[in-house]
Amino acid sequence: MRFDVLVEVKLRPGIADPQGATVERALPALGFAGIDTVRVGKAIRFAVEAADEEGARTQAVEVTDRLLSNPVIEEAEITVGPAR
Amino acid sequence: MRFDVLVEVKLRPGIADPQGATVERALPALGFAGIDTVRVGKAIRFAVEAADEEGARTQAVEVTDRLLSNPVIEEAEITVGPAR
Repeated sequence: MRFDVLVEVKLRPGIADPQGATVERALPALGFAGIDTVRVGKAIRFAVEAADEEGARTQAVEVTDRLLSNPVIEEAEITVGPAR
Repeated sequence: MRFDVLVEVKLRPGIADPQGATVERALPALGFAGIDTVRVGKAIRFAVEAADEEGARTQAVEVTDRLLSNPVIEEAEITVGPAR
């Protein structure tokens, strides 16, 4: 079976986020007053071929740990669903 | 009221994704056989101060169009929820 996976990789709380800070500094000049705590992360999508959703999740977790994120400074949130 | 917003910015279908292609090429050497169609996008999170969820969404859509994405090559998916 085929599954769609979304991995959201975000910087851990406390890790400096220069991209987010840059966006935040630009907001007042564009007229946005009520937006803060901007954090920029990665959203990685892929398809997994696996016997069941549990197998797909196992593969997703492993590829996230080994290739897609740096666990020292980043944390990942993995969402697995049936292929669309 | 405060709302948490997640903006997922992804390349439109058909737009070349060198980051995704690089990840995909690395997979066989790491022993991942069943993963394909890797696409790498951005996940931006921020907080919005607004009267209601509709107001928060309006601000989120505007900041996404004006600052966070390039609508020519990217599309965005916006999720608004109550602040955690």
